[in-house]
Amino acid sequence: MKILLDAMGGDNAPDANIKGAVNAASKVDANIVLIGKEDVIKARIEQLYGKDRIEDVAQNLSIYNATETIEMEDVPTMAIKHKKDSSMVVGFNLLKRGEGDVFVSAGNSGALLTGATLLVGRIKGIDRPALAGIIPAYKKGLVLMDSGANTNCKPINLLQFAQMANIYIRNTFGIENPKIGLLNIGTEENKGNDLTKESYKLLKEKSPELGINFIGNIEGRDAFTDGIDAVVTDGFTGNIFLKAIEGIGRLVKISLKESIKTNIFTLLGSIPCLPSLKKFAKRLDYKEHGGALFLGVKKPVVKAHGSSDERLFENTIKQAEKFVKNQTVEKIIKEIEKI
Amino acid sequence: MKILLDAMGGDNAPDANIKGAVNAASKVDANIVLIGKEDVIKARIEQLYGKDRIEDVAQNLSIYNATETIEMEDVPTMAIKHKKDSSMVVGFNLLKRGEGDVFVSAGNSGALLTGATLLVGRIKGIDRPALAGIIPAYKKGLVLMDSGANTNCKPINLLQFAQMANIYIRNTFGIENPKIGLLNIGTEENKGNDLTKESYKLLKEKSPELGINFIGNIEGRDAFTDGIDAVVTDGFTGNIFLKAIEGIGRLVKISLKESIKTNIFTLLGSIPCLPSLKKFAKRLDYKEHGGALFLGVKKPVVKAHGSSDERLFENTIKQAEKFVKNQTVEKIIKEIEKI
Repeated sequence: MKILLDAMGGDNAPDANIKGAVNAASKVDANIVLIGKEDVIKARIEQLYGKDRIEDVAQNLSIYNATETIEMEDVPTMAIKHKKDSSMVVGFNLLKRGEGDVFVSAGNSGALLTGATLLVGRIKGIDRPALAGIIPAYKKGLVLMDSGANTNCKPINLLQFAQMANIYIRNTFGIENPKIGLLNIGTEENKGNDLTKESYKLLKEKSPELGINFIGNIEGRDAFTDGIDAVVTDGFTGNIFLKAIEGIGRLVKISLKESIKTNIFTLLGSIPCLPSLKKFAKRLDYKEHGGALFLGVKKPVVKAHGSSDERLFENTIKQAEKFVKNQTVEKIIKEIEKI
Repeated sequence: MKILLDAMGGDNAPDANIKGAVNAASKVDANIVLIGKEDVIKARIEQLYGKDRIEDVAQNLSIYNATETIEMEDVPTMAIKHKKDSSMVVGFNLLKRGEGDVFVSAGNSGALLTGATLLVGRIKGIDRPALAGIIPAYKKGLVLMDSGANTNCKPINLLQFAQMANIYIRNTFGIENPKIGLLNIGTEENKGNDLTKESYKLLKEKSPELGINFIGNIEGRDAFTDGIDAVVTDGFTGNIFLKAIEGIGRLVKISLKESIKTNIFTLLGSIPCLPSLKKFAKRLDYKEHGGALFLGVKKPVVKAHGSSDERLFENTIKQAEKFVKNQTVEKIIKEIEKI
């Protein structure tokens, strides 16, 4: 297996990307290709690890030169069309030609989604590919789809998201009949805005024949605790939901730290329970879950978090390996074609 | 001051309503009127406090008889029109006639919003009244408006929400020039769906002349920590945001408890830091913040949380007292009329 990593994308590139790849190298059964400016990557490798050649850091690492970089300010379609030798476009082309099994990038999200759709291509039968994000939930992760790719959606899109989430969860987590809900502001059938009302009807009607275990409307406050495996929604609402969770997660961290550090006595008193608190923080930390899978394109593409640090890159690479191993994309293609 | 409380509304009515009112009685400078089935309330008072008359429990408490109750399953407009002697309709009518200064209810949300608009009436110049919810944020609360009243909105509605939030925050929290953002999925001007794009333009254009300190698009993850005072959004998105926060708050509680209780050693080890953890939990608990104010109607109306317990009722009653004292509604009427 070959994992293609955009070495230049993300807020902490290229150091976090390089370190994440080095840390992941010993844990995955794959070669990891760092795509980006070779001279820059080499110089950082020397600085960080004191080695001339990346292969001396880990045998399964290599560099693939790409002389340009897509910046966060770049207009997605323009960047994909004109920056032909950017790490992102090069990565997509390697993936398309079969010279890699999965492409991972923390770069410009718009460019990543546009590139995946334009260069790798949509799966026949899927109108809109979408991001399957994984968010913390009780005892396990919850799949949120679309977590940000499509700002405006139609009911048919949400139905297809449910189909893809269903196949993904079955294959990756071994859950036989995953429970899939529609993210809404009430549980009753007539609740919500025009999109959710129409989507509810369509999901209810089509789910039985598509083998989807549609459990109806889900309010956000129940999504985390009640044994739900996935919620589908449009990319605007999904992204609002996702970022609310990130924001409150950050607030939890700050508040917990400050509450403990109020004075020297509470600080000392807290020492015995630090391991429990660490475990607690880990459970809520989205960095444990990796990136978001871009489902609906012909090859595996993983969107790493823009602010990925080395640990998150490591986890996202491990997640990408699993994504390929489970053949999720092949299975989506096969199942969608059947219909 | 007279605070009108719907004694029959909410998941834990009437006991939580009664207990909350009794607890609040000694803390507010107001009379509290429990509206609902007199015989039921009296029987519960006797059971809970061993007294025949509610005045013997606290001098500033009284009962106002209303023989019907609006249930959660009732269709809002039908219930408001036909259940003329329900605790909610009676409450609104007392408020309208000036026989009370604020109405608080944890009952059927749709009926509450419909009743407020139909019976109390919209403020001239406000097309859509909206719920101003208060959510936990760093060091203080953050106003989220609309947090659930209007599923479908136009840009003009969001501008009016910003106007009302501005007046409310200035008067209630003494913040001179409150920072108001637009809830969105990116910070750039062209981000989001059709509604946020159009609303951004309108807010940017009109804010200077309306004295609104509009700080642009705000992503959910930044709303909690960066000194923002309010975010405006449509009621669907606002409610999704609010419930994501509630859900993760619940998950935090469960996870923290479980992490600490893993085994007897971590449990014993945790004892010294329990006060810090309690302080932490309190900071994140929405029950500390009370209910949501329904701004844009001619009199003060407060929507208490449907699952309010006695503590939340107590806090919501205290919040209602402040709402009247600060004359927020009068000030909104005055400032909107000026324009």
